[in-house]
Amino acid sequence: MASGTAIPKGTRDFGPFEMVRRNYIFDSIKRVFKKYGYLPLETPAMENLSSLLGKYGEEGDRLLFRILNSGDYLKKTKRNELADIGSLELSNLICEKGLKYDLTVPFARFVVQHLNEITFPFKRFQIQPVWRADRPQKGRYREFYQCDVDVIGSNSLYNEYELILIIDEVFSELGINNTIKLNNRKILLGIAELIGEKDRLTDITVAIDKIEKIGIDRVNEELEQKGIPQQAIKRLQPVLFLEGGNRQKLNKLKEILKDSETGLAGLDEMLSLLDYLDRNKLKSEIEIDLTLARGLNYYTGAIIEVKANDYAIGSICGGGRYDDLAGVFGLKDVSGVGVSFGADRIYDVMLKLDLFPERGGEDVRVLLVNFGGEDELYALDALKLLRENGISSEMYPDPVKMKKQMNYANSRNIPFVLIAGEEERRKGEYTLKDMKTGEQSGLTLDALLEKIQ
Amino acid sequence: MASGTAIPKGTRDFGPFEMVRRNYIFDSIKRVFKKYGYLPLETPAMENLSSLLGKYGEEGDRLLFRILNSGDYLKKTKRNELADIGSLELSNLICEKGLKYDLTVPFARFVVQHLNEITFPFKRFQIQPVWRADRPQKGRYREFYQCDVDVIGSNSLYNEYELILIIDEVFSELGINNTIKLNNRKILLGIAELIGEKDRLTDITVAIDKIEKIGIDRVNEELEQKGIPQQAIKRLQPVLFLEGGNRQKLNKLKEILKDSETGLAGLDEMLSLLDYLDRNKLKSEIEIDLTLARGLNYYTGAIIEVKANDYAIGSICGGGRYDDLAGVFGLKDVSGVGVSFGADRIYDVMLKLDLFPERGGEDVRVLLVNFGGEDELYALDALKLLRENGISSEMYPDPVKMKKQMNYANSRNIPFVLIAGEEERRKGEYTLKDMKTGEQSGLTLDALLEKIQ
Repeated sequence: MASGTAIPKGTRDFGPFEMVRRNYIFDSIKRVFKKYGYLPLETPAMENLSSLLGKYGEEGDRLLFRILNSGDYLKKTKRNELADIGSLELSNLICEKGLKYDLTVPFARFVVQHLNEITFPFKRFQIQPVWRADRPQKGRYREFYQCDVDVIGSNSLYNEYELILIIDEVFSELGINNTIKLNNRKILLGIAELIGEKDRLTDITVAIDKIEKIGIDRVNEELEQKGIPQQAIKRLQPVLFLEGGNRQKLNKLKEILKDSETGLAGLDEMLSLLDYLDRNKLKSEIEIDLTLARGLNYYTGAIIEVKANDYAIGSICGGGRYDDLAGVFGLKDVSGVGVSFGADRIYDVMLKLDLFPERGGEDVRVLLVNFGGEDELYALDALKLLRENGISSEMYPDPVKMKKQMNYANSRNIPFVLIAGEEERRKGEYTLKDMKTGEQSGLTLDALLEKIQ
Repeated sequence: MASGTAIPKGTRDFGPFEMVRRNYIFDSIKRVFKKYGYLPLETPAMENLSSLLGKYGEEGDRLLFRILNSGDYLKKTKRNELADIGSLELSNLICEKGLKYDLTVPFARFVVQHLNEITFPFKRFQIQPVWRADRPQKGRYREFYQCDVDVIGSNSLYNEYELILIIDEVFSELGINNTIKLNNRKILLGIAELIGEKDRLTDITVAIDKIEKIGIDRVNEELEQKGIPQQAIKRLQPVLFLEGGNRQKLNKLKEILKDSETGLAGLDEMLSLLDYLDRNKLKSEIEIDLTLARGLNYYTGAIIEVKANDYAIGSICGGGRYDDLAGVFGLKDVSGVGVSFGADRIYDVMLKLDLFPERGGEDVRVLLVNFGGEDELYALDALKLLRENGISSEMYPDPVKMKKQMNYANSRNIPFVLIAGEEERRKGEYTLKDMKTGEQSGLTLDALLEKIQ
C-alpha cells in the first residue's frame, strides 16, 4: 500500500463484491417497503447540533461527529479565552453541525419541519448511513447504514401487524430463517406494578434486557444493586420464565396481572396482534418473550426483535411503538411505530449461510475479445445486439494478447467469452466459449442471442 | 416551524416527491452503467485529510468540511499555543478527517489501496453524496450527489466511444434531447503551439472555457491580461470559430495544425472516435467544440460535455481522459477516462420539461378503506391477494370516518380505493372506486385483481 491511502478507522470501502450483495439486501428490503405503501425519505448527512444534542443521552452526545465551522471560525472568539478552555467547551464555540447519529431524530425533525405538507398517517422508509464516534471493533463501525421503516400518526395495532408482515416477507425473500420476538412495554409495566416497584420500570427493564447477554444471576445481582428489594426480585422470577406457547403464556399472565389495568391493556394488545397474525401463514416463528425490553427507553407499547435461527449474531431487526418521538421537537401526542433492519448483520448472516444468489441478474454475461481493426468492428455488431436485448456485456477495450483478455474474463467471473477473428468473420459467425465447461461453438447472431438468453 | 428544526444551510431533505423522481434518474443511470459492465463502488463519507488536502488546489482545501477529532482532542495541545493561533492552524491540530469533496480522489485512493485485488482495466461507477463548504446559492448545495463512471488502466479510445454510448443511452432513457460536445486537449495543445504560446496552455484553456459564459470579447481581454501577445490572440480567433460539420472542422484543422505533432495526434483520436460513433444511430447530437476546455486542468485527451437542448442550465454531464489520476497517491502512468452525471441539473431539466413518468411502477395502486371489526378482516383478504400479485397497496390503519380515508387516498395520489362493508361482505364482493373517474363497481376477488392489473 502506498503511503497516505488509509481510510479513517471504523470506516469501510465497499468494492464490487460487497456492493452487489449489499444492494441485493437493500433492494429486497425496499421492494417490500414499497409494496406495503411506505414512502422514501432522505435527510442530509449533517444536522445542526442543536437538533442532535441531548437526544441520545450523555453517551450519545459524546459519540457525535462534529463538523468544524467553515472559514475563519475563530474570528469572533476572544483569544484569551482559549488558553484554558476544555475540548468540549471549544467544540461548542467552533462547531455548529454534526453528522447524524441515527435516522430517527432527523425523521422527527423532518416531520415537525414539514408538518403542514405531510398527510398523516405518514409511512416512510429511510435507508442511509449514520455515524458514531464509537471505539471501532469487530462488527462495530463508525459509519454504517440503517434501514428504518416507521408509520406515525396512527395508534392502530394494525400497523404493528403490518410491520411484522414486512419483517416476515423481507427475511423470507432473503432466505433467512428467523424468530420474531414480541413483548409489550405495558405488560412490563404491569409486572413492575405487580411486584410493587412501579417507579423502577426503567431499572428493571434495562436489567432484564440483558438476560441473554449476561444470564439471569447477574441480572438479579444488578437489580439488587439498583436497590430493588429481594422480595420483589423473587416475585419477578416466575413471570420471566413462563412456559408454554404464546397464548398459554398470555393466559397465565392474564391471571397474574389481573389487578393491573396497564398490564391487562398490554395483554389485550398482544392478543389482538396474535389474532391478526393468525390470518397469515408466516415463515418466521413468532415468540412472545417477556425478557425482551431493548435498551432504548422510549418504547411505550409493542417491542419487536428478530433473530436469525441458524446463526448467532444478536438481533437483525428491531423496533417498537413509541408515543412521543416528535415531542423532542415540540410536537406532542404523535404516536408512531417502526422497526430498523440491521444491514451489516444481515449481510454477515447471508454470507456465512451462503444465502446470496450465485449470480445477480446484473452481472456481466459476455466478454467480447478485442482483436482490433476490422475484427473489433465485427464484434461490435454482436455487442450492440446483446445490449439491445438487455444483456450486460462488454468488450475488452484494448486489442492485447488473448490470454490477458481471458484472464480478465475469469477474474471478473464472466461466464461467456465471444471470439470473433478473421475466420469467424468470413463465415459470418461468432465463437462462443462457455468459461465453465470450456465448450466452444460457432453461432450466428440469432443463435448467439438465443443461447445467452 | 417549531424552533430548532432547521437544517444546515445548503443541505436538503428529499421527501417522497423528490425521492421517487431522483431514484428514477439514479436507477436509469445505474441500469445503463451495469449493462455496459461497470461495477459499483462506495467509499466512506469521510477520508483522512492527508488524502484530501492539496488535491483540489487552495480553493478546494478551503472548501473541505473538516471533522473534529473525537474525545479530549485538546489533551496533547500546549495551551499557551492556543492564545494566538489562527483558524487554519488550529484546524490542523484538532482535525484529522474531512468529508469527501468529490468521488475522484477517493476512487484514486481506493485503487492505490487495493491495487493487488483489482483486475485492470477497472470499470467502476460510484453514486454518492459529496460535500463542499461553498457559499450556498440557487442550484449550488453543500451536499449533493455525484454519479461518476470511469475506466482506468486502458489507453484505448474504445473507452471514450463506450462512454458516449452510455451518455446517449442514459439521456435517451430519460427523454432528454441533448448535445454531446467533444474536444481533445491535444488539439488545444496543438493550437497553443501554433500561436507560439505552448507554455501558456493553462491560461489559454481556462480563458476560452468561459466563452459561453462571458463572451469572446471578455475572453480576449482576459487573455491579454494574462500576458498573451495581441498577435497570438489574433491568430487564435479563426481556430475558435471554425464553421461546418464535425468532419469539415477536423479537415480544416488538419491543414492548420500540420506542423504540430501533438495537434495531429489529437485530431487522429477525434477522427477515430467519430468513426466508432458513425456505427451507431445516436439520439444525441455530436458536436466538436474547440472552445470546450472544462475548468479542471487534468484532462489530457478527450474532453466531453453534455448540454440539454431544450432547457438552458449548463452542462448536465461531463468528463474526459486523464493520465495521472492515481499519480497523486504515488501510482504513475495509469490512464483513465470517465464522465460524471449531474443529478441535480438532470432533475431540474426533467421537472421543467415534464419528463418524469406520471406514475412510477412502485406507487401505491389501491387504498383499502378500514371499517374495523369483521369488515377489516374481510378487506384483509383482498389486500393479501393484491400484494401477493406484486401490487403495492395499503389499508388505512384506523377505522376512522370514510371522508378522512378518502382524503388520504387523494393526497397520496392513490388511483383506486377499495370499499368493503357489511353489504359487500354479504355479497362476497368488493366495491372498487376509480378516484379519477369516480366510477364504482362491485367485483369478486378475481375480477378485482384483473381490473387492477
